[in-house]
Amino acid sequence: MNAQNGYNIEDLTVGQSASVSKTITDADIVLFSGVSTDTNAVHLNEEFAKTTMFGGRIAHGMLSAGLISAVLGNRLPGPGTIYLGQTLKFKAPVRPGDTVTATATVKEIIVEKKRAVLETVCTVNGKPVIEGEATMLCTSGKD
Amino acid sequence: MNAQNGYNIEDLTVGQSASVSKTITDADIVLFSGVSTDTNAVHLNEEFAKTTMFGGRIAHGMLSAGLISAVLGNRLPGPGTIYLGQTLKFKAPVRPGDTVTATATVKEIIVEKKRAVLETVCTVNGKPVIEGEATMLCTSGKD
Repeated sequence: MNAQNGYNIEDLTVGQSASVSKTITDADIVLFSGVSTDTNAVHLNEEFAKTTMFGGRIAHGMLSAGLISAVLGNRLPGPGTIYLGQTLKFKAPVRPGDTVTATATVKEIIVEKKRAVLETVCTVNGKPVIEGEATMLCTSGKD
Repeated sequence: MNAQNGYNIEDLTVGQSASVSKTITDADIVLFSGVSTDTNAVHLNEEFAKTTMFGGRIAHGMLSAGLISAVLGNRLPGPGTIYLGQTLKFKAPVRPGDTVTATATVKEIIVEKKRAVLETVCTVNGKPVIEGEATMLCTSGKD
């Protein structure tokens, strides 16, 4: 582990996994609208959102993606590592009250470049709502 | 345009572009930490962050990515369209006080699938901090 309790590249193993979960509330959607300026009516206007294919308000996809950032930055590989890239496929909507679990699983370790690729998935009730991959620059115990 | 003032797939042209800009403040970083649970010290602890390669606190990458969500959902292709996917390469840090401009530019239009691919870039003082691509499911004037 590094000085901030994150994993060094040498500590990682393929298949290693960590998760964080959070219930997405109306408060999260309102606050995310403010910080992002994404005030699309499908997020904020229940009467309008009822008329769409979603049948009601949905959370911003990038709000749930924030949980991926959390699991990577705080758990695996964790503090001290640097976020280089992310792919996101938005598979299904997240609604106010849904509990989202973001899980990162080590897929590939490139020790000489100190890079790790992790499969990242967000689920609600076990069903994927976001799928993708993260690339992280890790610390090394040899630094 | 569709009923929500978004672009139908038939309205898009390759090269068409839109932007949104926002100054990323300490308030944004604190609120994003709460909604995402990403409380990494590099975002919240100035004394610690000064000891890192960044030399001070930086904003969450996914916070700036929220501005991409905003330009896509509110401007181009805009309301009524659905966010299918996004790739993100984090190129440089965003610091409190930086003004981030997210720009989406139409790259590819697949009319029969109602899909559009947009190049998405976030810049600070003209320098890219995030690069990537978005895939959107658009409305059609023929629906």
